[in-house]
Amino acid sequence: MASTFGHLFRITTWGESHGPAVGVVIDGCPPGIALAEADVQAELDRRRPGQSRITTQRAESDRAEILSGIFEGATTGTAIHILVRNKDARSRDYGEMRTMYRPSHADYTYDAKFGRRDWRGGGRASARETIGRVAAGAIAAKVLRERCGAEVVSYVKRVQDIEAAVAPGEVTRAAVEAHITRCPDPEAAAAMEQYIDAARKAGDSLGGVVEAAAHGVPPGLGEPVFDKLDADLAKAMLSLPACRGFEIGSGFAGTRMTGSTHNDPFYMAEVEPGARRVRTRSNRSGGVQGGISNGEQIVIRAAFKPTATILRPQQTVDAAGNEVTLKPRGRHDPCVLPRAVPLVDAMFNLVLADHLLRHEAQTGGNR
Amino acid sequence: MASTFGHLFRITTWGESHGPAVGVVIDGCPPGIALAEADVQAELDRRRPGQSRITTQRAESDRAEILSGIFEGATTGTAIHILVRNKDARSRDYGEMRTMYRPSHADYTYDAKFGRRDWRGGGRASARETIGRVAAGAIAAKVLRERCGAEVVSYVKRVQDIEAAVAPGEVTRAAVEAHITRCPDPEAAAAMEQYIDAARKAGDSLGGVVEAAAHGVPPGLGEPVFDKLDADLAKAMLSLPACRGFEIGSGFAGTRMTGSTHNDPFYMAEVEPGARRVRTRSNRSGGVQGGISNGEQIVIRAAFKPTATILRPQQTVDAAGNEVTLKPRGRHDPCVLPRAVPLVDAMFNLVLADHLLRHEAQTGGNR
Amino acid sequence: MASTFGHLFRITTWGESHGPAVGVVIDGCPPGIALAEADVQAELDRRRPGQSRITTQRAESDRAEILSGIFEGATTGTAIHILVRNKDARSRDYGEMRTMYRPSHADYTYDAKFGRRDWRGGGRASARETIGRVAAGAIAAKVLRERCGAEVVSYVKRVQDIEAAVAPGEVTRAAVEAHITRCPDPEAAAAMEQYIDAARKAGDSLGGVVEAAAHGVPPGLGEPVFDKLDADLAKAMLSLPACRGFEIGSGFAGTRMTGSTHNDPFYMAEVEPGARRVRTRSNRSGGVQGGISNGEQIVIRAAFKPTATILRPQQTVDAAGNEVTLKPRGRHDPCVLPRAVPLVDAMFNLVLADHLLRHEAQTGGNR
Amino acid sequence: MASTFGHLFRITTWGESHGPAVGVVIDGCPPGIALAEADVQAELDRRRPGQSRITTQRAESDRAEILSGIFEGATTGTAIHILVRNKDARSRDYGEMRTMYRPSHADYTYDAKFGRRDWRGGGRASARETIGRVAAGAIAAKVLRERCGAEVVSYVKRVQDIEAAVAPGEVTRAAVEAHITRCPDPEAAAAMEQYIDAARKAGDSLGGVVEAAAHGVPPGLGEPVFDKLDADLAKAMLSLPACRGFEIGSGFAGTRMTGSTHNDPFYMAEVEPGARRVRTRSNRSGGVQGGISNGEQIVIRAAFKPTATILRPQQTVDAAGNEVTLKPRGRHDPCVLPRAVPLVDAMFNLVLADHLLRHEAQTGGNR
Repeated sequence: MASTFGHLFRITTWGESHGPAVGVVIDGCPPGIALAEADVQAELDRRRPGQSRITTQRAESDRAEILSGIFEGATTGTAIHILVRNKDARSRDYGEMRTMYRPSHADYTYDAKFGRRDWRGGGRASARETIGRVAAGAIAAKVLRERCGAEVVSYVKRVQDIEAAVAPGEVTRAAVEAHITRCPDPEAAAAMEQYIDAARKAGDSLGGVVEAAAHGVPPGLGEPVFDKLDADLAKAMLSLPACRGFEIGSGFAGTRMTGSTHNDPFYMAEVEPGARRVRTRSNRSGGVQGGISNGEQIVIRAAFKPTATILRPQQTVDAAGNEVTLKPRGRHDPCVLPRAVPLVDAMFNLVLADHLLRHEAQTGGNR
Repeated sequence: MASTFGHLFRITTWGESHGPAVGVVIDGCPPGIALAEADVQAELDRRRPGQSRITTQRAESDRAEILSGIFEGATTGTAIHILVRNKDARSRDYGEMRTMYRPSHADYTYDAKFGRRDWRGGGRASARETIGRVAAGAIAAKVLRERCGAEVVSYVKRVQDIEAAVAPGEVTRAAVEAHITRCPDPEAAAAMEQYIDAARKAGDSLGGVVEAAAHGVPPGLGEPVFDKLDADLAKAMLSLPACRGFEIGSGFAGTRMTGSTHNDPFYMAEVEPGARRVRTRSNRSGGVQGGISNGEQIVIRAAFKPTATILRPQQTVDAAGNEVTLKPRGRHDPCVLPRAVPLVDAMFNLVLADHLLRHEAQTGGNR
Repeated sequence: MASTFGHLFRITTWGESHGPAVGVVIDGCPPGIALAEADVQAELDRRRPGQSRITTQRAESDRAEILSGIFEGATTGTAIHILVRNKDARSRDYGEMRTMYRPSHADYTYDAKFGRRDWRGGGRASARETIGRVAAGAIAAKVLRERCGAEVVSYVKRVQDIEAAVAPGEVTRAAVEAHITRCPDPEAAAAMEQYIDAARKAGDSLGGVVEAAAHGVPPGLGEPVFDKLDADLAKAMLSLPACRGFEIGSGFAGTRMTGSTHNDPFYMAEVEPGARRVRTRSNRSGGVQGGISNGEQIVIRAAFKPTATILRPQQTVDAAGNEVTLKPRGRHDPCVLPRAVPLVDAMFNLVLADHLLRHEAQTGGNR
Repeated sequence: MASTFGHLFRITTWGESHGPAVGVVIDGCPPGIALAEADVQAELDRRRPGQSRITTQRAESDRAEILSGIFEGATTGTAIHILVRNKDARSRDYGEMRTMYRPSHADYTYDAKFGRRDWRGGGRASARETIGRVAAGAIAAKVLRERCGAEVVSYVKRVQDIEAAVAPGEVTRAAVEAHITRCPDPEAAAAMEQYIDAARKAGDSLGGVVEAAAHGVPPGLGEPVFDKLDADLAKAMLSLPACRGFEIGSGFAGTRMTGSTHNDPFYMAEVEPGARRVRTRSNRSGGVQGGISNGEQIVIRAAFKPTATILRPQQTVDAAGNEVTLKPRGRHDPCVLPRAVPLVDAMFNLVLADHLLRHEAQTGGNR
């Protein structure tokens, strides 16, 4: 079990789906960052179940309690602990989970690894674990804003085959929040909503892609050769439940190009009157070259598989080795994409904040 | 700079393209693993430049010298150091690199981060750094073979639009090595070779995808919630030069399916007379569920962009802020895919060996 | 701020003296260890303020709540979170602390480092932080007992100049708990109690030495060259509040001997009929040679300075740079030694559990 | 095996006593630090065997080769590798070591841990491993000098019962180097030399204490609650061969004082005309309070046991379980103290450099 992420800005999450609470310790946050529970709550509300018709109806208010590390309205530089109580933990819905392995869930592998597991609601493998990440990500976002002005905007780029026609640079947080799908293209958003509705009625589920762009990241973040910025982003995304793929910049599509069309030409841009800096004319690099940010937008995409929980009978086995049929039961998210958006935001912000501190250590803060 | 990778089986690489040597320290390797320089050399020869017509012609024999950690033919459990001397370091080919930023290389970002850089041949950002990874990966492969019988087979799946028609489970190491492209589908391999030749003649470059499968990995490897097996594999791949994307199992394509068609049904398989174990009928999970191996083949893909070095004039800027034209010069790999295969092998083996040890720590070795 | 300790058995503490609660996340604990809140509570009760006449009278019941990682009476292998609420947080006693720097406390250095601090009761630098360590140490002790039968016994060896006449091998946990001083030599214990009483009446404080012995530790624990068992023990002890020195085996006194009298001769001991193993005739090595346990008792000592809080006027400065007199006020522990014993137990057990897992990773559990 | 030390300024050593070479990778060193091989060599010469009559006569020139990380006379921010070849490796002197366990050496424990070992000259447990530490420490010292002007001065404080009458604040590097014992008190130095000579003639060995003071360390270094500055110093010292104890400030002696005499009163010092800063009138805290530097001298002491290698017959056992007599043979250091001084310097500098970078990460360099 590895519940800690980050090198300098470091989080440790704990908690199970049907235990009394879940939470996170944030260690290494710089002192003097203004912080209130409302800052954290705003992000938790974006992740919360039951936020719209198209998400799971588990009724959780997910209230953040900050139990340490904040004094007189700001961080002290010491460990911050945030706790969220679990309320609507209907274990009865999950009785079969005690013995049956739900297909494409973590039930079997947790048993294989640990020899035992808290089977209620997925236990530690439940997406409720991500509450801690989102709470911590809200703090990372504040650090980035104060220290370098960077901001991350994530959104649903694709649900199944419906793709938003948007360019990363043009999407605002408001446009993302304008629709319950968190797709900033209204036409695509409407179609996605229909598809998700249809999937729910059919007891089925859908996958898709979240795209995210970070604006205002200064050049120089990333620690080659192993802790490259894109490598840490890839790990961050793949550590999210249901994420099965990651790409930066041109990604997989870029492999079909030639070097002469793929390379990003450098030029000198006048960013203010009299002030010039190095920029690239295209951004197929996605803002990261050689594992280090180059000052352009950092653009990534994360693939989320169709939710494994479906409301249809499925063939499986139980812990005793019997082949059995799992009956449909319980609540489910027919498509995780809308709620994956704040998770991608959180992990992106956490990686950037960690690398900002690492870079400042090396430069003595003289960026 | 972060030159260390792994938690228990841990490597630290060092060295620049045109310095006297490159190398690696492998720490945490279990004692008693039979090891000779030839084991390491075999893998280095697969990575070596100049190994075929279609790779860069830099003439390096890349001889491995093991300077510590081996005694009487086996590992002692102490730090292993492997050093490889650089020979053909023609700095004269790279004179312009002192001042000009090559597009889509790390020249600008290293300057932005560190304020200075060894510009000769890409310095630390050169792919010569991966020599240490390949040497260490050869040792990780031996650990896996001895401890659990697991084996990794990587190969070129796609170059530009030419895709091999192979299933991961059927590819042997021999089939991979049968062709200089390291594509195990002879027809696709021949086409790829032609494309690469054409790109070289045109002074251009191509990208593509490496696919890799690990066989015989026991269930239970992976440390949720952050050091999931797939998360660490994603980081490992994205830390490779030119890698811009990663996916496991159904990956990005799987996001277009529905849950009912995507889920992998469990069943009980008779693996030997009288011995049954849990298996899945399909493997869209790619052998990893909830971040933990499930005993099926682990199947991943890594996207490599077209080589940034091309032999054509390119628009760029220099360190003084002048817009300049970079003239084509030097040697180049028109397509890194064939040489990326041993790199993917190495990183895959390193991640698996590290996670095998981590899992054994938790179980006391009682898998 | 670094709130995490350990490499595989890893703890993260959080919480301030006068915040709502303190706690700890224990990550990497093996699954299947029987655990109830009572196991943790027993150790917390040994650390608790107000446990006897000679400790601080802050009234805290320090009830442990386990919020994750335990299911059906045993560990699941996932992160364990233990929370203890603060109750008797009389901030009014500490009003001056807002501005004045208490001599030989952390008030000034926290301000110097972080630019701000939670001044109430010492904030994060308060010894209440050690509650999390003690809770985690109780779990580490259970892991050791189940996995290898090792046990740690710590006790007060010296208070000021009164030294217990005991040999590490002969002290039992019962003898330690028999007296409120936690000194297992009744005569010395009585004298210590008198001294501590006298110091309290005088508004003064005393220091001393805790000695600790680990029995039943198998040979082979410790990871040279940096994570030597004694090096990690030294760090563990010095990370405790008020600890200013550490020694193992003969320690500082041993430096006055010669090699010929200091070396521990090896011999073959018949441990059971027919079973012999390597032992040493003396144990000046304190059970650790070359940073690795040799199967003998591991004997260490930790020096604790006289409590910095005294009830006498003291010269100091305030945050504004004025020279001021700090008036005596509040509650204090005239001697931390009795309550330091469970802290030393906890850190010792944590280091041993971590190294046991690390060793098993390397050997595949085949000790 | 753990061969890596440090969190941001991080070193990894490798190599055995009688292998071809030993070395170190330094990762995380800031860019732009002027560095030549001579800087490193100067420190290696202080550690070198055969440097005087009273050290072991193994003939090694210990020439440092820097193989990476330096370009045009300064660090690039990338991994620095330094290699030193072994020359005078007389394995014949150590034939018995193949089977016999030398008392109070690491022979038995390495066998117990790893099941096998390079027995030649102590293999990995040899003090030759410290060459890498000294080389890295020389670079850490340069970082400290450039970034904050701090300097460490270590010296022999005591050999057996002969103690130098010096105050930490008054000892210069020149005074330390003025005598082959590295004791800055000429009278004590002369007596120490006599004692060491006598021990050598008797085939015996002596222990003692190294004291070290760091001047000019800014307030704020140290990362409570676990990576306290003194905790990391304790670990650093105990990781050195033959070190068995550590103390900071008043240390063990301070435990015999009372709080009212032990506390360090604060006052405002005029450090330049018009500039005042917080200082303490005494320095029993040794420059560290609550795990964080307070701007006073950091004063520590490390206890080194009498060298385990003596030229007298000793009772021991061999790997087959026979009780045998080890005959005196080979070369030995009758007292490691003079050569321990550069080791203490190195580890002290490494800890300070690491904590300086960690602190700058948190403050954004705005100390």
